[in-house]
Amino acid sequence: MRIAVDAFGGDNAPEAIVKGCVQATAKTSDDIILVGDETKLKELLAGENVPEGRITIRHASEVIETGEPPAEAVRRKKDSSMVVALQLVKNGEADAVVSAGNTGAYLTGAFRYLGRMKGIKRPALTTPMPSVKDVGVILDAGANVDCRPEFLLQFAHMGAIYAEHVLGIKNPRVALLNIGAEEAKGNSLTKETYGLLKEADLNFIGNIEPRDVPYGMADVIVCDGFTGNVVIKLIEGTASALFTMLKGVFYKSIITKLAAMILKPGLKSIKAKMDYSEYGGVPLLGVDGVVFKAHGSSDAKAICNAVCAASTYLSAGVNDKIKEVLLSKNAEDEETAEE
Amino acid sequence: MRIAVDAFGGDNAPEAIVKGCVQATAKTSDDIILVGDETKLKELLAGENVPEGRITIRHASEVIETGEPPAEAVRRKKDSSMVVALQLVKNGEADAVVSAGNTGAYLTGAFRYLGRMKGIKRPALTTPMPSVKDVGVILDAGANVDCRPEFLLQFAHMGAIYAEHVLGIKNPRVALLNIGAEEAKGNSLTKETYGLLKEADLNFIGNIEPRDVPYGMADVIVCDGFTGNVVIKLIEGTASALFTMLKGVFYKSIITKLAAMILKPGLKSIKAKMDYSEYGGVPLLGVDGVVFKAHGSSDAKAICNAVCAASTYLSAGVNDKIKEVLLSKNAEDEETAEE
Repeated sequence: MRIAVDAFGGDNAPEAIVKGCVQATAKTSDDIILVGDETKLKELLAGENVPEGRITIRHASEVIETGEPPAEAVRRKKDSSMVVALQLVKNGEADAVVSAGNTGAYLTGAFRYLGRMKGIKRPALTTPMPSVKDVGVILDAGANVDCRPEFLLQFAHMGAIYAEHVLGIKNPRVALLNIGAEEAKGNSLTKETYGLLKEADLNFIGNIEPRDVPYGMADVIVCDGFTGNVVIKLIEGTASALFTMLKGVFYKSIITKLAAMILKPGLKSIKAKMDYSEYGGVPLLGVDGVVFKAHGSSDAKAICNAVCAASTYLSAGVNDKIKEVLLSKNAEDEETAEE
Repeated sequence: MRIAVDAFGGDNAPEAIVKGCVQATAKTSDDIILVGDETKLKELLAGENVPEGRITIRHASEVIETGEPPAEAVRRKKDSSMVVALQLVKNGEADAVVSAGNTGAYLTGAFRYLGRMKGIKRPALTTPMPSVKDVGVILDAGANVDCRPEFLLQFAHMGAIYAEHVLGIKNPRVALLNIGAEEAKGNSLTKETYGLLKEADLNFIGNIEPRDVPYGMADVIVCDGFTGNVVIKLIEGTASALFTMLKGVFYKSIITKLAAMILKPGLKSIKAKMDYSEYGGVPLLGVDGVVFKAHGSSDAKAICNAVCAASTYLSAGVNDKIKEVLLSKNAEDEETAEE
């Protein structure tokens, strides 16, 4: 399989992207197509030890910047590294695409060039959800700010398939993010969605309260994209603020500094666990192609992880499984409608 | 002034409630009316050193439990400590009411017995927002799960008045909770609300991203009640999960245990800072009466804090200030409409 990588997307592009791709060649058997300015990429690859034929370059003359208005950027910059990488998937020259660039532009580009899978109402960004126990996923994490209950039902199905085939969780526990445990709690969206999830062929365990999210009480957490985005960014911010406060405690005196030194390795592992950006790439489930988003601040290791995640996703055939499940559901719905 | 306290609401009622009220008599000059089973309350007060005439008892034979369906509980249990306490405010026998009981029932009861202030579309729960720096507020924190932009505009005004007159923050910075910094970001609710806030007579500083919330980047954070409730519960859960993980690091060996002991006082202060329940009571802004909600798990100290918060709120005349500002706004709006 071939994975196209937007070499000029992200805060540390193109250096970290190139290094990450080189690292990935040792961890996956898939080939990589680096997309972006050919001269610069050749120069960067010259300094690396690349296994024969595993990385090729596809020239793209433009770059979409972080702050650019998404829709306009995608429309105007047709020869940008991001758009060209997406088109490689559309044309069948690549089987998956990875970018750490402008999220809005990437989503817009994926919708425009690859489109939705047949039967899918809205694709969803599916982000790892770090917790005290294992890692689950939350979706939608920001692709759809205004949602309807039917969208959330599909998110639940797609998330469950992903959790089972990529994260290896058998019969994943699906929960609806809500502000109370009881069925009748929540806003109009969650109340209606609860009814749909209850009837669905899923291991639906009911509502999950925000307080329980970091405790890993569910494997797949379903919500609208606005709430999901609030959740991942608030966990990130709260963890970061707590570590800032901890630093204040540590630097109080020589004795506290010594104590902090002893605890440092343990603290570092907590920090890594809570940082969802550490988990590499995040798939956009429901588009007709394999699209992985890496964090904007990705370093080489994160890019390597993202490429490997895309590779695992490809070999698990997740998109085919989603199509299977949703086509059979749609057929059922049509039958029911006809009765 | 007189503050009615629901003596049988909350996990530690009635003991902690009675103790908290006794403590409050030393910190405020307001008198307290304890509402609930007279025999039990007399018994509890007998063991306490109560200043002459500062605490009286109002009998109520019923109790609304934590798990009861709110609307039904309020309708059926007319002689419950919570409903009787609310009615004392309605009848003018008390100037404020405090309860640590069933939140849903308390909100329902406040709406039913006290109603909204004239001109207020929806009352809002206004919760302290702990941060690395100072403490601001977030509203709505859970009273209205489905909101319209006009509601959020009023929340902003009420929150700003509260922040200024109770928290003592001059010209408080008002921000809209959103998933991006730019005006065009967010869902349909936040996009429309942004336009209203921009035009309002407020120190509106734009959107605040969830990541920045724990850093105290705004004094008043405005959002719908579903999102607000997610925010306060997720911060609580994330902080708690992190402390659970820290414990794991601390108990690893004798050396880490010793290191942890040295850092303990500092860690305790962080924990207290991040716990919004530590800040005593939370007002329901916009109802026609002074209504404070204490956390369900309040101990005597938290109840004392809640009574003191209600007392400060009363002497600052916050409700009159809200009425003033909103009546003048409504008059302006009517003029504009007539033009």
